[in-house]
Amino acid sequence: MDYRMYDLIEKKKHRNSLTEDEIRWMITEYTEGGIPDYQMSAMLMAIWFNGMTDEETTWLTLAMAKSGDTLDLSSIPGIKVDKHSTGGIGDKTTLVVTPILAALGVPTAKMSGRGLGFTGGTVDKMESIPGMRSEFTEEEFLQIVKEVGFVDASQTKTLAPADKMLYALRDVTATVDSIPLIASSIMSKKLAAGADRIVLDVKCGSGAFMGDFDSARALADQMIRIGELAGRKVVAVISDMNQPLGHAVGNAAEVLEAMEVLKDGGEERLRTLCLAIAVEMLQLSDRARDSYEEAEAVILETIRSGAAFRKFTEYVRRAGGDETRFLNSVEQVEKRTVEAGNGTSSVSVTIPTSPALSETPVLVLSEKEGYLSSCDNSEIGMTSVMLGAGREKKDDVIDMEAGILILKKLGDPVKRGEPLAVFYTKKEAVIPAAKERFLKAYHISETPPEVDPVILEILR
Amino acid sequence: MDYRMYDLIEKKKHRNSLTEDEIRWMITEYTEGGIPDYQMSAMLMAIWFNGMTDEETTWLTLAMAKSGDTLDLSSIPGIKVDKHSTGGIGDKTTLVVTPILAALGVPTAKMSGRGLGFTGGTVDKMESIPGMRSEFTEEEFLQIVKEVGFVDASQTKTLAPADKMLYALRDVTATVDSIPLIASSIMSKKLAAGADRIVLDVKCGSGAFMGDFDSARALADQMIRIGELAGRKVVAVISDMNQPLGHAVGNAAEVLEAMEVLKDGGEERLRTLCLAIAVEMLQLSDRARDSYEEAEAVILETIRSGAAFRKFTEYVRRAGGDETRFLNSVEQVEKRTVEAGNGTSSVSVTIPTSPALSETPVLVLSEKEGYLSSCDNSEIGMTSVMLGAGREKKDDVIDMEAGILILKKLGDPVKRGEPLAVFYTKKEAVIPAAKERFLKAYHISETPPEVDPVILEILR
Repeated sequence: MDYRMYDLIEKKKHRNSLTEDEIRWMITEYTEGGIPDYQMSAMLMAIWFNGMTDEETTWLTLAMAKSGDTLDLSSIPGIKVDKHSTGGIGDKTTLVVTPILAALGVPTAKMSGRGLGFTGGTVDKMESIPGMRSEFTEEEFLQIVKEVGFVDASQTKTLAPADKMLYALRDVTATVDSIPLIASSIMSKKLAAGADRIVLDVKCGSGAFMGDFDSARALADQMIRIGELAGRKVVAVISDMNQPLGHAVGNAAEVLEAMEVLKDGGEERLRTLCLAIAVEMLQLSDRARDSYEEAEAVILETIRSGAAFRKFTEYVRRAGGDETRFLNSVEQVEKRTVEAGNGTSSVSVTIPTSPALSETPVLVLSEKEGYLSSCDNSEIGMTSVMLGAGREKKDDVIDMEAGILILKKLGDPVKRGEPLAVFYTKKEAVIPAAKERFLKAYHISETPPEVDPVILEILR
Repeated sequence: MDYRMYDLIEKKKHRNSLTEDEIRWMITEYTEGGIPDYQMSAMLMAIWFNGMTDEETTWLTLAMAKSGDTLDLSSIPGIKVDKHSTGGIGDKTTLVVTPILAALGVPTAKMSGRGLGFTGGTVDKMESIPGMRSEFTEEEFLQIVKEVGFVDASQTKTLAPADKMLYALRDVTATVDSIPLIASSIMSKKLAAGADRIVLDVKCGSGAFMGDFDSARALADQMIRIGELAGRKVVAVISDMNQPLGHAVGNAAEVLEAMEVLKDGGEERLRTLCLAIAVEMLQLSDRARDSYEEAEAVILETIRSGAAFRKFTEYVRRAGGDETRFLNSVEQVEKRTVEAGNGTSSVSVTIPTSPALSETPVLVLSEKEGYLSSCDNSEIGMTSVMLGAGREKKDDVIDMEAGILILKKLGDPVKRGEPLAVFYTKKEAVIPAAKERFLKAYHISETPPEVDPVILEILR
């Protein structure tokens, strides 16, 4: 059936629903160049205003999922559980949960993105390990999952090309922030990537795409409903992103911190979220379904036995990483005392050091006294970009050793002149501006603030 | 000052007003190719949803008016009064009022459009007179106004090019039907064309862009407010377009009907509207301002003395028209009896004939008995396009002799088998489909309907 794009815009403009056929036609035509961008952007803006029904959103998701290659994971035995985060700062949960699940015999065949702007990407973090590859042929990709039990690959160019085209257009026409469009964009890639069941980590707060709980919940709900209509079981964890997750922001630093969790340590909020996501993934794979405690116990045992960390090391080796250098960087984390003058006196702090981190840590000292009450978290992300840890533009080169070590979390008391964070960077010239940006991002109050828990809600 | 189009879209999307500078920048950049169509169409759709303030609409109007050449009418003595119709079916008022005003010493330097879709255009009607030109250099244009007192020219390509570009984009992105966009489009051309004062004929009904009175009034109000803010006095006549104006639809036929009015005859509703518009134009030129009756009397005298018709003939001669053939076609209108079989019996009707009309009139007979109660007027327009009198696409060639003579007006009683209309066409093959379309456009009721007056409101 052939339609006229004009008529479809007119329909959506007047809040009428598009049919499955119309949406499929529109996405196919657009992908093939048969619909000009100027008509699609008018449609996107009409969707921004009038939204889409659950059915429309699902049809859009499926049409985009089918716009290019789709992965067939049926050759991998067992229930494949995928995991997706909507993006945040210091979010290294994928590095923790995929080896845990693999060690437990639950395969995950994951495609991840790269960092852009204030959010980091799992692929970059993986590639901070010397030699690691993240681009594989489909055959290799499947083979690695079969051998190791998980893979963390860069999304292929032929996966959901309609989504790529639409996202690029939304990005320049101010139509990114639409829940049906965000939900269908995420879910189209997940469906094309072939997983049976999906755990979504929907970030919420000043360092996330969804700034407030209501919109995060609306997005989570929307993706769960798409899953239902598309026949995939989806669980959504809504988690706090009002401060960086854990201590580390920056690629190599985040790998080290993820390994701390895999060695049964790690910052408390980060641990809590990793365990919760791992539990949801395990239960979605039909293991330990009746008891959260049982699932958690199984996961902790996998960590404590060393199986999870060994699984990660196995993956490093299989994906071309330099195992010796990787193990060195993890095992040679030493505590080092760093001194910094703050004008009138000097201060020292003990911080970790590793072959994987820049050699010249810089202390960032508080200029006020009180409690860390809130954080403009995207500014922390942008500070790490300034230090070289991220990209402002797609082609920027990342300094894997650069980043930030956050020493204080929201709610912590802080004294004037006390270190709040350590910068790792080779860009000496940017340090003053980066310090200013970082310090401005935190608000310090006289009384202890209410701090949101890391997990706000789990929608099953 | 330089802006980012993305930010302006974002502003409008969130219902914030754009500044004068922002709008001027946007229109200049777009005209020069610095803003891609896909961003502009997102903006247009955001405007469709969120509207514009009077100030924004006026700034948009002025920016478009200044995007190309503007006409300077200051070399023509007196107050220049322009006239604009929002477009309809059988609307030949311009052909009547401009010579009347010229004969009264009020100059009108008018730029008109061509017909497209179901609406006709004054330029096409003028060009149905053999030899008539409607494209002039600026010098010629001004010279003709000075010599004859009026001109009806085709809009030059360099007048308000931003409006042309935006209109073309709106036309394919379903963003035409937005009152601030329609109002600014019309007014930008009027302001660029340099008139001091403007009478707008805002059509309302099934054959007009504005289907109902409220939206016609909103458009009229909007254009008056633009006029106020731009320092031009504007009067708006809201007139009925729920049926063709007068009897004739089709270019040569409409010229003949306009000449009937200039010879003190013509269909009543057409006469009423022409007189009302002429009165408003005369009074806007500061003549007979205190008395409608006085103004009307002056106009009727101009008609009855033959001065108005002579003025039109003078214009025909000056604009390259074949005066002899023109006068022949007007003066040789004869009544002729046409017969048509309706299956079981035959019927005859007396209709006018002229050298300017196709030689093979076709009667369209009523299939029902009752009163003509309503009319889907755009369908009448499209029927005339089928017969060859208009364009479906911009490049279609018009048959000037083709058209429809409407024999019955809304409210008239009609018998089964009685002629409703006469088709003039050379396209014999389309006659059955054209008849079906025409007959379907009229609704026939058992009781006499309420019929709207031709003039619904005058906003001064």
